[in-house]
Amino acid sequence: SILRTMAAVWSMGPGTLKVPLSLFAKNRRRLAEKLQNGQVVVLQGGEDISHYDTDIHYVFRQEAYFTWVCGVREPGCYFALDVSTGKSHLFVPRLPEEYEVWMGKLLTCHDFKNIYAVDEVHYVDQLRDVLKSLNPETLLTLSGPNTDSGLIAKEAVFEGIDEFKVDNEILFPIIAELRVIKTPEELEVMRYVCKVSSDAHKQVMLYAKPGLMEYQCESVFLDHCYRVGGCRHVSYTCICGSGDNGATLHYGHAAAPNSKRIEDGDMCLFDMGGNYAGYAADITCSFPANGKFTDEQKLIYEAVLAARDAVIREAKPGVMWDEMHLTANRAMLEHLKQGGLLEGEVEDMIKAGVHGTLQPHGLGHLLGLDVHDVGGYLPACPPRPAGPLARLRTARRLQPGMVLTIEPGCYFIPRLLNAAQNHPEQSKFFNWVKMSKYRKFGGVRIEDDVVITERGVENLTFVPRTVQEIEKHMAKGANFK
Amino acid sequence: SILRTMAAVWSMGPGTLKVPLSLFAKNRRRLAEKLQNGQVVVLQGGEDISHYDTDIHYVFRQEAYFTWVCGVREPGCYFALDVSTGKSHLFVPRLPEEYEVWMGKLLTCHDFKNIYAVDEVHYVDQLRDVLKSLNPETLLTLSGPNTDSGLIAKEAVFEGIDEFKVDNEILFPIIAELRVIKTPEELEVMRYVCKVSSDAHKQVMLYAKPGLMEYQCESVFLDHCYRVGGCRHVSYTCICGSGDNGATLHYGHAAAPNSKRIEDGDMCLFDMGGNYAGYAADITCSFPANGKFTDEQKLIYEAVLAARDAVIREAKPGVMWDEMHLTANRAMLEHLKQGGLLEGEVEDMIKAGVHGTLQPHGLGHLLGLDVHDVGGYLPACPPRPAGPLARLRTARRLQPGMVLTIEPGCYFIPRLLNAAQNHPEQSKFFNWVKMSKYRKFGGVRIEDDVVITERGVENLTFVPRTVQEIEKHMAKGANFK
Ligand SMILES: [Mn+2]
Ligand SMILES: [Mn+2]
Repeated sequence: SILRTMAAVWSMGPGTLKVPLSLFAKNRRRLAEKLQNGQVVVLQGGEDISHYDTDIHYVFRQEAYFTWVCGVREPGCYFALDVSTGKSHLFVPRLPEEYEVWMGKLLTCHDFKNIYAVDEVHYVDQLRDVLKSLNPETLLTLSGPNTDSGLIAKEAVFEGIDEFKVDNEILFPIIAELRVIKTPEELEVMRYVCKVSSDAHKQVMLYAKPGLMEYQCESVFLDHCYRVGGCRHVSYTCICGSGDNGATLHYGHAAAPNSKRIEDGDMCLFDMGGNYAGYAADITCSFPANGKFTDEQKLIYEAVLAARDAVIREAKPGVMWDEMHLTANRAMLEHLKQGGLLEGEVEDMIKAGVHGTLQPHGLGHLLGLDVHDVGGYLPACPPRPAGPLARLRTARRLQPGMVLTIEPGCYFIPRLLNAAQNHPEQSKFFNWVKMSKYRKFGGVRIEDDVVITERGVENLTFVPRTVQEIEKHMAKGANFK
Repeated sequence: SILRTMAAVWSMGPGTLKVPLSLFAKNRRRLAEKLQNGQVVVLQGGEDISHYDTDIHYVFRQEAYFTWVCGVREPGCYFALDVSTGKSHLFVPRLPEEYEVWMGKLLTCHDFKNIYAVDEVHYVDQLRDVLKSLNPETLLTLSGPNTDSGLIAKEAVFEGIDEFKVDNEILFPIIAELRVIKTPEELEVMRYVCKVSSDAHKQVMLYAKPGLMEYQCESVFLDHCYRVGGCRHVSYTCICGSGDNGATLHYGHAAAPNSKRIEDGDMCLFDMGGNYAGYAADITCSFPANGKFTDEQKLIYEAVLAARDAVIREAKPGVMWDEMHLTANRAMLEHLKQGGLLEGEVEDMIKAGVHGTLQPHGLGHLLGLDVHDVGGYLPACPPRPAGPLARLRTARRLQPGMVLTIEPGCYFIPRLLNAAQNHPEQSKFFNWVKMSKYRKFGGVRIEDDVVITERGVENLTFVPRTVQEIEKHMAKGANFK
């Protein structure tokens, strides 16, 4: 059994990462250690979602907690972990023979056992009986809030669950906390997906030039992630803002679908990340569409880079994330002040809220199986701050094994700038003559994915970051051919 | 107002089709003509779908009936058509000012009126009051079965609907029937999306070679459709089967995700279609991975091509689609008999069900805003056939303006071949010695998208189809470089 567990791997073929299924077995062991004999964890996986009333489905994506315990990539499954024995039970749909004609080879329970390296595999219609046979004191189901969306985790339901004693409160904070700290095996996957996504960003920077449409760059990114890296999914809708679209923080959705022509003189702000074996990358590159920074662009870019550098320098175990947010803000404001765009004392700017005008979002977030990963505000953690830091997706103390994004930004958002200009406490810090040059600038964001190590951070992101590096890389690209 | 309607267009930029919003106004006029004064049509558009409990959404796709009446591409909307006046009312979500920071410029109702060329735009929270002011005798909502999925169309619901007299039976058969017959304006869009998808298939054929993974070809298709053709979506999950995967009719889903290595000697069966402005293409190309047909491959391919050619030759207004299915079957069986794979009389083979063993699916289906488009089995149409033709998605008489796929295929599906071999009535028609060479062959499908014209068909598909054309095209590709 151990040998089989060690041997089972999943990959997308030559050149892509081989993910050992033992990664998920280790997650289960970590979970069982936190629970009590007599408890049986029951999770329900995702279902196919159709396009409205048609027979066409979205390409299936597995639910993240379900992936975490077993790595199963197919819809319609359940999973049980018996804490007393440590045994894992996968339940798969019983498919009609006709399935084979339309959907592919009918796998046996034995096949699934080998593919996913679990202890036992049964059909979903056996779930109640198998659970009965385990004679559990309590079934643990998952229920708790996602603090980014406000939605509640998908709790397992099945015919006959009312015949068991069910607790839906114990599991959530334990499993969410375990997801926060990545194992070495999980970090290998995250290194891979961040490298693939970094390379895809580099391809986009070679391809980009004025005259293209934003979505054409999105397509190059998607193609590199999938064709070269084996990532069928990206972790979120690509944000490909050029020019003033860079100031729309979640640009790219259906009402703003990356459909502007990229113009000479535009900054590009491209926030895109692949997904491999369920694990997410989340990387932002900002660069001039024509491959050469103007002085105005350089000032903003290097202010944001100073913020990123300050956090990379200071982040380490024990440090509070909300402090890191302010560290980034201070570095950026200081740089903008040196550049003459802001005036006065940085600490006074922060008291007046200037940092929230220029960067309305938090410094970054936990990253893992979800791009905005769970565990930001668990009951045992510091609560969401009030005021300008309320947008932070976590305010936790850093620990080794956490993976986070570091993504300071500087944006020229007309609505917020107008408010600042009309707000006497804030207005005085801006040099509005110089600011007038930036009204259509959009924004700059620099987003790295990092692991907190014993001594500091390991950066998983490998893209050109300094002005010089970006210009040198882009000199090999479409603008100069 | 007419001038504005004429002027409003939607496109994805240079090189992509400009779709006039008058296309949808014409659909509305066609609908109003079939209804009565005093009736007001109310449709509800689609909503964003999140990835489980997270704050990440699938890229939004609009519901097809909603697209048909107004072309609106954003989530959370309603639409009303007042038959008495012919006036169109779009209802959009009232978004908070903060939206602008995260999601982009807040559009006014006036903006939406210009973008979608509708008569009036209101907020969704005004729906009840605006409908009251129209003083309708009856609200018509949409409810009826999708005969491919068995699911029911999304019926509009809103606060206060119980204050109206609502009929949910009148609308469905009328609007579904109107969707079956495409207008010249709709045909322009379908010509475009089929041309883009044809070109993408040709790119894939140049790229494909033994040693690649199937999904790498999928990625090339997706990239061409999006980057060159402006198609952000495909119409269904790409089916990229090589070798024996070609015999899995709906290959490509999460449990069979285009993840096999393409081997020398494999046939590739790639069924993929883009989507532009909501309209679908659905094209299948089958070709040898190494660019040269073997004699065995040529026999099967040309049998399927004979079936396709027979249908292209004979399809025209007045012809029954189930007859076309049998026409295709006969041509294929005859060709296989000439090649020595089958023996006996073709009509006897059909009586015995040999055609259903080699091609378990129907000849094709209506195509439009859904890839398996609506209207296949409306109450006024011939019912679903019994027996081996039960898989047909329609059995209608052909009419000018219908768009259909013609997609005969020949598959070597182990489960079905074993059954045929054990079935004395079928077994005698097969030359099992020759058949033994085909056990791992997979399959061939040739799928064209055509419009029924007054005199026959207009083929919207432009890909190499004969053995010679395919080999000549592929000689420019990766196998020979
Ligand atoms: Mn991020
Ligand atoms: Mn089809």
